[in-house]
Amino acid sequence: MDLMQYRELAEQIFNDVREMSFDGVGVTRESYGQGESAAGDYLTRLAQAEGLAVEADRAANILFSPPDLAADTPAVWVGSHIDSVPQGGNYDGLAGVVAGLLCLIARQREGGGKGPPLRVVAFRGEESAWFGKAYMGSSALLGKLGQADLDLTQRSTGDTLAQYMERVGADVQAIREQEVLVDLGHILAYLELHIEQGPVMVARGLPVAVVSGIRGNIRHNRIECLGDAQHSGVVPRWLRHDAMFAVSDLVMRLDEHWRVLLERGTDLVVTAGIVQTDPAEHSISRIPGRVSFSLEARSKSTDTLEAFYQLMRAECAAISRERGVKFEFDRRVFSEPATMDTQICDILSKACEQRGVPYEVIPSGAGHDASLFANAGIPSGMLFVRNQNGSHNPREAMEIEDFMLGVQVLADALNQLS
Amino acid sequence: MDLMQYRELAEQIFNDVREMSFDGVGVTRESYGQGESAAGDYLTRLAQAEGLAVEADRAANILFSPPDLAADTPAVWVGSHIDSVPQGGNYDGLAGVVAGLLCLIARQREGGGKGPPLRVVAFRGEESAWFGKAYMGSSALLGKLGQADLDLTQRSTGDTLAQYMERVGADVQAIREQEVLVDLGHILAYLELHIEQGPVMVARGLPVAVVSGIRGNIRHNRIECLGDAQHSGVVPRWLRHDAMFAVSDLVMRLDEHWRVLLERGTDLVVTAGIVQTDPAEHSISRIPGRVSFSLEARSKSTDTLEAFYQLMRAECAAISRERGVKFEFDRRVFSEPATMDTQICDILSKACEQRGVPYEVIPSGAGHDASLFANAGIPSGMLFVRNQNGSHNPREAMEIEDFMLGVQVLADALNQLS
Repeated sequence: MDLMQYRELAEQIFNDVREMSFDGVGVTRESYGQGESAAGDYLTRLAQAEGLAVEADRAANILFSPPDLAADTPAVWVGSHIDSVPQGGNYDGLAGVVAGLLCLIARQREGGGKGPPLRVVAFRGEESAWFGKAYMGSSALLGKLGQADLDLTQRSTGDTLAQYMERVGADVQAIREQEVLVDLGHILAYLELHIEQGPVMVARGLPVAVVSGIRGNIRHNRIECLGDAQHSGVVPRWLRHDAMFAVSDLVMRLDEHWRVLLERGTDLVVTAGIVQTDPAEHSISRIPGRVSFSLEARSKSTDTLEAFYQLMRAECAAISRERGVKFEFDRRVFSEPATMDTQICDILSKACEQRGVPYEVIPSGAGHDASLFANAGIPSGMLFVRNQNGSHNPREAMEIEDFMLGVQVLADALNQLS
Repeated sequence: MDLMQYRELAEQIFNDVREMSFDGVGVTRESYGQGESAAGDYLTRLAQAEGLAVEADRAANILFSPPDLAADTPAVWVGSHIDSVPQGGNYDGLAGVVAGLLCLIARQREGGGKGPPLRVVAFRGEESAWFGKAYMGSSALLGKLGQADLDLTQRSTGDTLAQYMERVGADVQAIREQEVLVDLGHILAYLELHIEQGPVMVARGLPVAVVSGIRGNIRHNRIECLGDAQHSGVVPRWLRHDAMFAVSDLVMRLDEHWRVLLERGTDLVVTAGIVQTDPAEHSISRIPGRVSFSLEARSKSTDTLEAFYQLMRAECAAISRERGVKFEFDRRVFSEPATMDTQICDILSKACEQRGVPYEVIPSGAGHDASLFANAGIPSGMLFVRNQNGSHNPREAMEIEDFMLGVQVLADALNQLS
């Protein structure tokens, strides 16, 4: 099946959806709001014109299916999300939905396709920018959204997520009760194509990549390092308890552990995103007595996260002894990594090879709807497409050639699933 | 001459002045304000009752002299300051003035004393807390205060330093013209006793110490490290330009240089008092793209300051190359170190030895009026007295026994000057 002939259709869809959601700077498709619904309506009309069946699931996500497919026929799902961040890019999410639709349209136009039948899902509410919570659509479907989530309010209007979901027809009562709104037995596998949101593929010259897993993370939103605030001129080195030197020491020790762990082939990124001496008492001529900072480690391996976390705590203890400071930790927050199905990864890799497409197997640092499916026990796989200038900004710039290569690989892989 | 018998007088002076300047928490003696003037008036009455001559110099500092000393007779000056920070301690400054007065009173009561005659000076306006400028009284006397300084405004009232100085009788016109208001040829030496404002002497069990020099400093109020702000999850280590890791790297490299320089016997302290990721864009899940920080090195050696500064710039260049970041520097600010006169240091050291007082020769990290005299070419010396709980806070706690040891050593040294 040659998907390359659908390039014009793909361009038309991207252009039409961009136009309807352009905000003057980038695209804005609010979760459960107007922009998202407009994109959903557009795709619905397009699919119906192709003779496909379109329905909403009970969480108001949009499901595209072959016209003759019975509701209880097990199928492979392909999807992604159709919302965006404010002033975002056009391809984050939409690319995956369009990729799935092109595969479905190709099968519909050309007849059949090998392997199990295919459904395409367009999730609502994937972006955390609107309600401070990500993966709302897939979470709701899988019974993972709760009352506290439904009470979250939209950043501009202040209306609750429950109100927003109700307006687009979701079964909020069932979602509140964390009912699983789909028969998981009918989902054979979940595949998602998504633009890469980092710079790796551009740097390595890879048009597509197979995603090995989606990183989880361990975080402290706020760690405080407490030293002794004193006149900077009068305390010699051996009597100082400098909180800033202590935090710098910690960061450099973690940097070294990180380097060593990478050499051993583990997957890890480490970030101290917020670091501040205490504005209430800091001054150029004062030894910092208090530094607060955030710390985040991400890995696709829970073991790596746990090991790194224990290293971090051990280093804090060592630094406390050596520098006479104290570290105080807020609640540790853990998000589970998701592992992509190795068989699906192999099929995707083989599909790349058969088409002569350069690829690598890389982890996803950002979260995706696919992690919800993987952690619900459904064999899942992801394909990344190269994307320039990062994501969550209007300069996002996927090349259509790269996208079509991804679609071709996806279509080939779908034909090889059993 | 046995100064120990003046302990009760010393205690009475400290108690009386503390009482008149107590603010409910600590003591407050505003520069050129009520608290400072009240202390000056009290000391004036006390000195006059002892038969001493008291006059204001043209910068409104108070000068205590033997009754029969002609204005043009060269003399050794002993002094310190009588103002305090808000809610400060009683001994910062006052101790040195009282020490000088006790020596003068002892000579007056007991007749003579060896060596050159003695004048005691009580400086006004040493603390930068009130007008944002330190050593105002001694600077004015030595022609080092200028128009920009005189235009500084008081933290509470907003009145200018010129207005404040005028109210206590200073010759503001002459000060504005940076006239030297004293004949430097008539000052044979300047000696100052001061509480130590750091923790070294408490840690080492030293009641007194001889000050070798007063540290100067090199500062940048604001250095910016610019990296690349990106999603914390999606950028691997080799593609990161993390401004926080870069700044931590710099701090740790400087810490290592500092350690090595100390082992070579140089005098140095290093502080990054203010460090902040950019609040406009920082987040727990974002690689810091911008970190601003202050950097200060203090040393009694200009060479050490210069060498350390060049090391710092070299490390910034190396880190820029290695981590793909950029450092941007604001104006470099330099304050000259002051060296205490070695002969005076020897005399003070010998005086300690002869009295069996444990002492060490240490640098002063904080600035003092003595540095103005030293840098004006007058042979200067300082004696530190042990002080608990640091300075510039109401918990400052000099022991009267330590103080009296200091006074005795000072008196002995004055008798040995030629």
